[in-house]
Amino acid sequence: MTDAQPSPIDFYFDFSSPHGYFAAMAIDEAARGWGRAVRWRPMMLGAAMRESGNRPLLEQPLKGEYAKRDWARFAGFMKLPWRLPEPFPIAALAPARAFYWLDDRSASLAKDFARAAFTAYFGEGRDISKGEVVAELGAALGIERERLLEAIADAALKERLKRETAAAIARGVFGSPMFFVDGEPFWGADRLWLMKRWIQSGGW
Amino acid sequence: MTDAQPSPIDFYFDFSSPHGYFAAMAIDEAARGWGRAVRWRPMMLGAAMRESGNRPLLEQPLKGEYAKRDWARFAGFMKLPWRLPEPFPIAALAPARAFYWLDDRSASLAKDFARAAFTAYFGEGRDISKGEVVAELGAALGIERERLLEAIADAALKERLKRETAAAIARGVFGSPMFFVDGEPFWGADRLWLMKRWIQSGGW
Repeated sequence: MTDAQPSPIDFYFDFSSPHGYFAAMAIDEAARGWGRAVRWRPMMLGAAMRESGNRPLLEQPLKGEYAKRDWARFAGFMKLPWRLPEPFPIAALAPARAFYWLDDRSASLAKDFARAAFTAYFGEGRDISKGEVVAELGAALGIERERLLEAIADAALKERLKRETAAAIARGVFGSPMFFVDGEPFWGADRLWLMKRWIQSGGW
Repeated sequence: MTDAQPSPIDFYFDFSSPHGYFAAMAIDEAARGWGRAVRWRPMMLGAAMRESGNRPLLEQPLKGEYAKRDWARFAGFMKLPWRLPEPFPIAALAPARAFYWLDDRSASLAKDFARAAFTAYFGEGRDISKGEVVAELGAALGIERERLLEAIADAALKERLKRETAAAIARGVFGSPMFFVDGEPFWGADRLWLMKRWIQSGGW
């Protein structure tokens, strides 16, 4: 046996996902209690849905109505601000690209940005698919507006997000949030209790 | 204020649903701890899927692979016997009709039958869509084979299951298991912890 650190939990999400928001606001604190770091990986859920044949929840009869109620209830349970934003869902390219640009500089700054983006979208209804909104969120964290706007328009960042999304799908990601703990996948913000037991018992 | 009993929890499920199995093995004991009775309502999930546009999990790329792993893991967590039966899924008409016939006689006998049917299918791989298997399961509970076989072939029972399924869909049931607590819907065998908090806090 060695004293090697346990692997970080990989956290995949789309910025347009309500349960991605709930997970983002809880996972780092929860994982700290389990002795784990968390590696955040935003991706484009639409690409995964094309792969799995799924459709956005609100387009699904019955399930869409349930989802609206479930989101509001879950936000209430977590005491998080909540509204169903307009438009919803969005193609959240801008915040995902901004995330990776920041992540290459500081993982914790990128997480602060991600939490701010989720809160802006689902708490305040601001359209985070817009570059200017992303730039404002970055500015509030001390990031120069123009540099962030240039980064999210940069071809290399666009390619990076495509690559990260393809890597997520190759790993089996079909929903948001999805977590991997030592290779074991967990889907959903409501599975943290199961992840906790899995980690603490070393599987079963 | 009166001392009226709280309403029972309505539990909708399909006999072909792995998470219906997990829920069936846990819900009555859990609900007893919350001071609630449980009213079981088997239904035909295929009809709800046609309504919501969903497909059986194993037909969905990525999500199907996750589901297989999730079922085995959940069964291990609950210490329940598990196998992916062959054939799967099935049109579980025979056990659902048998359930309603028994339920009109004794709700607890019907639940015993349902738990036995789930265990036969997911624990032992027996094809419970077959009348003779249903009759054997009934016989083990002291129910006359011929009477049960007649009942599941009876036009009135067939109509009854259609009616129960339509009523479930009208109420918004799109998956298995789904629970209603005082009108509040909860989807999934992994949401018992959330139902518990909802009941104990009177909503939030």
